[in-house]
Amino acid sequence: MDLAAFYELVEKNKSFMIASHVAPDGDSIGSVLALTLALQKIGKKAVPVINDDIPEKYKFLPGSDLIVKETSANYDVLIALDCGDIERLGFDKQLKEYGAIVVNIDHHKSNSYFGDLNLVDSNASSVGEMIYQLLDGKVQIDYDIALNIYTSIITDTGSIRYSNTTPLSLKILAKLVDKGIRPDYVSRQVFERRSLASIKLLKSALSTLEILADGKIASLLITQDMLKVAQANEEDTNGIINYAREIDGVEVAVLFKENEDSLIKVGLRSNEKVDVSKIAAKFNGGGHPRAAGCQLRLPLKETQEIVLNAVKLAIMEETGERCN
Amino acid sequence: MDLAAFYELVEKNKSFMIASHVAPDGDSIGSVLALTLALQKIGKKAVPVINDDIPEKYKFLPGSDLIVKETSANYDVLIALDCGDIERLGFDKQLKEYGAIVVNIDHHKSNSYFGDLNLVDSNASSVGEMIYQLLDGKVQIDYDIALNIYTSIITDTGSIRYSNTTPLSLKILAKLVDKGIRPDYVSRQVFERRSLASIKLLKSALSTLEILADGKIASLLITQDMLKVAQANEEDTNGIINYAREIDGVEVAVLFKENEDSLIKVGLRSNEKVDVSKIAAKFNGGGHPRAAGCQLRLPLKETQEIVLNAVKLAIMEETGERCN
Repeated sequence: MDLAAFYELVEKNKSFMIASHVAPDGDSIGSVLALTLALQKIGKKAVPVINDDIPEKYKFLPGSDLIVKETSANYDVLIALDCGDIERLGFDKQLKEYGAIVVNIDHHKSNSYFGDLNLVDSNASSVGEMIYQLLDGKVQIDYDIALNIYTSIITDTGSIRYSNTTPLSLKILAKLVDKGIRPDYVSRQVFERRSLASIKLLKSALSTLEILADGKIASLLITQDMLKVAQANEEDTNGIINYAREIDGVEVAVLFKENEDSLIKVGLRSNEKVDVSKIAAKFNGGGHPRAAGCQLRLPLKETQEIVLNAVKLAIMEETGERCN
Repeated sequence: MDLAAFYELVEKNKSFMIASHVAPDGDSIGSVLALTLALQKIGKKAVPVINDDIPEKYKFLPGSDLIVKETSANYDVLIALDCGDIERLGFDKQLKEYGAIVVNIDHHKSNSYFGDLNLVDSNASSVGEMIYQLLDGKVQIDYDIALNIYTSIITDTGSIRYSNTTPLSLKILAKLVDKGIRPDYVSRQVFERRSLASIKLLKSALSTLEILADGKIASLLITQDMLKVAQANEEDTNGIINYAREIDGVEVAVLFKENEDSLIKVGLRSNEKVDVSKIAAKFNGGGHPRAAGCQLRLPLKETQEIVLNAVKLAIMEETGERCN
């Protein structure tokens, strides 16, 4: 990463738009706010921009009230965080119309290097971790900045449960706790808040659980009717697929979600062996080996049959065992 | 902590029983195995003793097959780990009959200092963390020892979600990942294994959810019938109360569990304000301010009415607001 070029660019310019992707999460919001607050601290004009609603649970983050949606204002520099490509920003105009210079700071392997300056580190657990490294020794990382970075790292590592957790991530977390961050407080905000609707939806979804292929496949269903009865929204469906994936003996978990326009969204997760991105690709979907998805415009029953057969085949190919 | 005395004692003696409490968890098993393997590594005779069954999910820990239940053998030294008092060991005989010298290594504030040598550090997240500090620089911490210590720390901190997570805990985790520990692998073993029975039980329990007192109380019920239908056991009920506690706006969560002998076990959790140990105490129970429990030998309906009224009263006293 060319840090010197980044520091020079910050020194030479005055106004910065710090932007990140739609459907914001803890890393995009936390890293945008950490960098915004740090730039403001050294006397720069910095505005955080996310072209979407900020989920309630992230409103405890210092500076979250500063975030605006897409703006027509011009800045010297547009810094895009946590965006593999420019479409993720959800902006209408060309990037150059927002900032004369475009900086792309990201940790996705698939990054398209769309910036004039690109800081891409696919080994970083989170963009928050990259922002920490950028600021370390340059700006005093105060409590507010620390809280944003801590939230970035724990959300993107699932509280150090995912494979992207590195010694560096843990060392940075240690330094942030040294600055007064209370791990239990942050975790309560990020991980331990459930809407009543999400609990009701979870109950309905779990009652659809089917175990197939000698226990290697677990399948769940969320219908439009369930969403209505629970008064739940899209966000409330997050994480439900993991209940299927975590069952002892299960290798592949599948979640079928009925969309309003009779499209069926299919989520796929695997534990150790099966590359579910290959299964998703068969239906024009995509993703990672352990987490992928696709969409089918077919009746529910038919979709379930086709996808579950593809999963059985993939398990058979991977394990050499015939599934029933 | 008098580390010098500990090192001297290890040097002077040959055989060690490394013991911990009944109802073993990740910290007791992990710390017992880490210390056992380290002592064996420097040529000592060391036997891990836990007078209870080892839960399936901890059998991935290196050395877990060495663990024996209470033994009549005599050792030079008995080292008790993670035990606030000697009763926790669940042994029949006096401690001196197992080891001529008794060492007590623990992190509970309430520790009774029952050893000839007592290393008690209530600021340590886990006994595993204390064992790391004891071994650091003295024994080469290899992968097997590292895996046991890593498991100790993440189980007792709830994957760094609890308030006992300190900069030191995080720094030690960083060093262990540097030694080859894969955070996602360990987390999968410890946190991401659910029995099919536990999922079925969760579904039934969630369908009993009641929200009271303007959303401040959430109550769940687990009957003997639910356990039978789900083919679930006591362990499968773990954590279900948190679904009630984590609902937005809830201050106190209550779980009623019907026992075989028509006793009702009541679990109580609170989020920020109410000291549930005081509520439990009214019914001869006890616990901590945020987690407590009691038992009532009354019909279910009556138990629910009495306990929920006590919770309403406690919330009213705490918040000054009248509950409905």
